[in-house]
Amino acid sequence: MSPAETVHVPLDGGRAYDILVGRGLLAGIGPRVAELGARAVAVVSDTTVAGLYGEAVLGSLREAGLRAGLVTVAPGEGSKSYATLAAVCDGLLAERIERRDLVLALGGGVVGDLAGFAAAILRRGVRFVQAPTSLLAQVDSSVGGKTGINSPHGKNLVGAFHQPVLVLADTATLDSLTPREMRAGYAEVAKYGLIDDPAFFAWCEARFGEIFAGGPARETAVAACCRAKAGVVVRDEREDGERALLNLGHTFAHALERLTNYDSARLVHGEAVAIGLALAFRFSARLGLCPGQEAGRVANHLALAGLPTTLRAVPGGCGDADSLLDAMRQDKKVRDGALTFILARGIGRSFIAPGIDPGEVRAFLADELERDPRS
Amino acid sequence: MSPAETVHVPLDGGRAYDILVGRGLLAGIGPRVAELGARAVAVVSDTTVAGLYGEAVLGSLREAGLRAGLVTVAPGEGSKSYATLAAVCDGLLAERIERRDLVLALGGGVVGDLAGFAAAILRRGVRFVQAPTSLLAQVDSSVGGKTGINSPHGKNLVGAFHQPVLVLADTATLDSLTPREMRAGYAEVAKYGLIDDPAFFAWCEARFGEIFAGGPARETAVAACCRAKAGVVVRDEREDGERALLNLGHTFAHALERLTNYDSARLVHGEAVAIGLALAFRFSARLGLCPGQEAGRVANHLALAGLPTTLRAVPGGCGDADSLLDAMRQDKKVRDGALTFILARGIGRSFIAPGIDPGEVRAFLADELERDPRS
Repeated sequence: MSPAETVHVPLDGGRAYDILVGRGLLAGIGPRVAELGARAVAVVSDTTVAGLYGEAVLGSLREAGLRAGLVTVAPGEGSKSYATLAAVCDGLLAERIERRDLVLALGGGVVGDLAGFAAAILRRGVRFVQAPTSLLAQVDSSVGGKTGINSPHGKNLVGAFHQPVLVLADTATLDSLTPREMRAGYAEVAKYGLIDDPAFFAWCEARFGEIFAGGPARETAVAACCRAKAGVVVRDEREDGERALLNLGHTFAHALERLTNYDSARLVHGEAVAIGLALAFRFSARLGLCPGQEAGRVANHLALAGLPTTLRAVPGGCGDADSLLDAMRQDKKVRDGALTFILARGIGRSFIAPGIDPGEVRAFLADELERDPRS
Repeated sequence: MSPAETVHVPLDGGRAYDILVGRGLLAGIGPRVAELGARAVAVVSDTTVAGLYGEAVLGSLREAGLRAGLVTVAPGEGSKSYATLAAVCDGLLAERIERRDLVLALGGGVVGDLAGFAAAILRRGVRFVQAPTSLLAQVDSSVGGKTGINSPHGKNLVGAFHQPVLVLADTATLDSLTPREMRAGYAEVAKYGLIDDPAFFAWCEARFGEIFAGGPARETAVAACCRAKAGVVVRDEREDGERALLNLGHTFAHALERLTNYDSARLVHGEAVAIGLALAFRFSARLGLCPGQEAGRVANHLALAGLPTTLRAVPGGCGDADSLLDAMRQDKKVRDGALTFILARGIGRSFIAPGIDPGEVRAFLADELERDPRS
């Protein structure tokens, strides 16, 4: 089956790769992986996704003449841990994955980050393919080569830059997501508009229902996000500059995830990002950088998509302003102790703001903690 | 204090670095590290080495204006584990090491491999300095960027290529090594002669006593080994070809270490390498590639330096030929199931031998298991 859309990621050093986007692509994954020249493939997945697509994927790989095995982990952010990383590495070794073989990450962002990191460090690096099955993974985490796990000190603090050799985004897999998972992924879709593409944000406002329902707008949106992200990654692979814009909303989001102990029953990444996006715009407005009505438009659209947009919307709470500030300090974007935020002058007009005064942030957070969760 | 010898490693992409070799260099480590432009340094060491040099190194770093902290691990190969890696990463985060800061590995090969790997994956990569304090680390593991830990499936099966930004080899630290540790490191010194430098091997035969005793031959030998290794690494950083020659003796050695459960009471890496070197030459002789008297000369010199050269010299034994062969198959140098060995046509005439018949290896090992350990 031909993909509806192909996004090429022209990285140097022989590391260019394609992102294929289309409905039903998983059924034909075997021949596409076989073209990459491996002898064996280890599929890494979580038990939920493996139950849905594992047999079909293994069958397609084997039909294409590849030796294929399966390594599974528990679903959820808790698997981005040192212990699960060790179990995956040992699982890949038990599958006798050699330097020329492949790891295939089949699942959402957790599986992709974890399997990609395991591939990066197994025998000091083997190739890997991303087959993202969540909206969040298809539009964000599967593209760009950031892999990693969480530490008790914070999210994604241990990891590697390791680019996939192929990304295959089967949009039919999104039909099996819960509404909550779909909404969470949608926060990252909206983010691309907010960063630098006001027309895309306006298109999202008009068409987001179709993305959720599975009309052709879904492939258009996934490909648009991949194209936006790929462009940034090619220009700034290691986040020395521009790539940091992709973290719009994420300094807040990572702190919230940390303070809720990465407990997905309370908060998943995309929900944290939605709150973070709303906060980034309101903080920008408070600093006089962005019109207040733009911040309101952002929060309204996210709320319309069913996403939380306030600190008090976090089930079980998220601590006080000082705990939030402390959690933010552990972010990788800390440099010499000062806080760097991604702020905005309006929708589609984000920028990197280094050296933000922690006192300003604390005062903002204290006010936000008073805000009505329905506002 | 100026180093007696400086070896430059001209890697591309801004990754060139210097190896400084000299007696007493640790006392001046602070200013040299400060020149690298970090704000904070975390020293990773084992409790033994930290007890000997920790305060002096921390003092020198702090005098040079750097924030410096210490992360210690237990001595011994057992620390090259998933659990210790996690503890070191969390220790570095507790020291608030940021992307521009530095990790300093102070210790032998275990500390260097472990701390280097932790630096490679902390925040997806921070810079690190090697201050090797064992002969083995000074001549081998601190140079070239291979970092990693062991898996229950085998040695160094999980890791990263991550080059140091400076190597500082203080040869005075070797005075505190036990004779056993010194001998173990010496196996790697002799290896460089055996790979491609028969004149250096002959010089070693004449001067090895001075290397052990701490005369000027020690700095000459350390620098010669670093120069040899740096040359190979620059030409073939990722071991697509020539770099594999540095593994002379190591396919056997890794299997022996695995079968003795990485128990350094029984066998340390350098002892395993000594046996591996003797086996590689005797196997070459058996295959008709190398004169038998050259293999004898290799074993004689290693034995004169107090090193083991036979399988039966392994305390507690090392299993039968089949277990040895199985352990070798887990080596990273396995490709499509066939075994690759480094063999030799004589002293200083090693070469990569892919596709070695496992049956030949099994028969050779079975005979070696009968060999008198004193022969």
